Amino acid sequence: MFTLIIGNKNYSSWSLRPWLVLKMLDEPFEEQQIDLYLSDTKARILAANPAGKVPVLIDRKLRVWDSLAICEYLAECFPAAKLWPDDAGLRAVARSIVAEIHSGFSALREHLAMNLTLRHINYQSTPAVEFDIARIISLWEEHLPRHQANGEFIFGGFSIADAFFAPIATRFHTYNVKLPEQSQAYVNRLLALPAMREWYDAAQAEGQRGQ
Amino acid sequence: MFTLIIGNKNYSSWSLRPWLVLKMLDEPFEEQQIDLYLSDTKARILAANPAGKVPVLIDRKLRVWDSLAICEYLAECFPAAKLWPDDAGLRAVARSIVAEIHSGFSALREHLAMNLTLRHINYQSTPAVEFDIARIISLWEEHLPRHQANGEFIFGGFSIADAFFAPIATRFHTYNVKLPEQSQAYVNRLLALPAMREWYDAAQAEGQRGQ
Repeated sequence: MFTLIIGNKNYSSWSLRPWLVLKMLDEPFEEQQIDLYLSDTKARILAANPAGKVPVLIDRKLRVWDSLAICEYLAECFPAAKLWPDDAGLRAVARSIVAEIHSGFSALREHLAMNLTLRHINYQSTPAVEFDIARIISLWEEHLPRHQANGEFIFGGFSIADAFFAPIATRFHTYNVKLPEQSQAYVNRLLALPAMREWYDAAQAEGQRGQ
Repeated sequence: MFTLIIGNKNYSSWSLRPWLVLKMLDEPFEEQQIDLYLSDTKARILAANPAGKVPVLIDRKLRVWDSLAICEYLAECFPAAKLWPDDAGLRAVARSIVAEIHSGFSALREHLAMNLTLRHINYQSTPAVEFDIARIISLWEEHLPRHQANGEFIFGGFSIADAFFAPIATRFHTYNVKLPEQSQAYVNRLLALPAMREWYDAAQAEGQRGQ
């Protein structure tokens, strides 16, 4: 059985991605959580991962220590789940989106930080923030209509791209970002997934425990 | 034939990675360069890639717009080149390294910016910079001895991980970072690759043109 080491569900957008993929695979896994805001946090994370980050996936003797690398590993472990689109060109587009999110969108990260217990929060609008928001919307408005006949996700069936969009969907929800109709419907569908409800509930419970 | 859109060879560490992979594949490709420091740069990059970044790979009608996604695409196009290690566990480790570089090492990026025409430059040592340098060295010192019987690269044969380490090798060279012997030998081997010499020479020529 896999073990996934994650951070606080309320804040750790990086942890959410592979967690959601594992849930969508319906694959049982042990979850280990490291509270990100305690005095021993740094030491605990470094013990789990010398890179100093969560999430980490443990599969017997193997440690996979980055959210994207974990998703790629799961895609290889479960080919029937088609975590990437079947078509090679579409797969390259999906990987471009995921890699773009993985290294970019720093303005969105900074000014619309993931915080699931908050709602109706104003964000500081800067040109970089507006560029990032417009970029996400343009990706959604371009790809959603092309694949809607095949499913409710960005490329039809659930893919790693949806797992990378999920934290962004929570941000747009928290910070009341105005979206075109089909983008908003996509956000609503992502947030309504049973796995996402489970993650939100756990984030709420963390808040009540003072995490 | 592929087209690869890149930035200035002197500065664009992101462009170097897929360029080096294409060269190591010995695959002919057309190179288009966008000078990163001109008044029309932003408009030219956005016309090539709405994400606003280089590099971009064009393969007939397909655009792949991120350095890591391009490398993954090339790995799929040329399976015989084994751009990822054959072993599934080792491949997951290689992808973890590559993804860690793709989203991290911000202190290294900021304080040891890639600049190929410079040598013997001092860098500002901060705890974050020293953590990043130590992390890279620990990856090299861990993995190089395990695979040296199979080749001169980090996992024996050339892989995408080497392409991601190549810009870091240039930084360590520019900023005189002290390295353990086998790490230094690896840097020397990377920088001595004919493709790397070609990239360096082109960077030098850019400088003489005032780019």
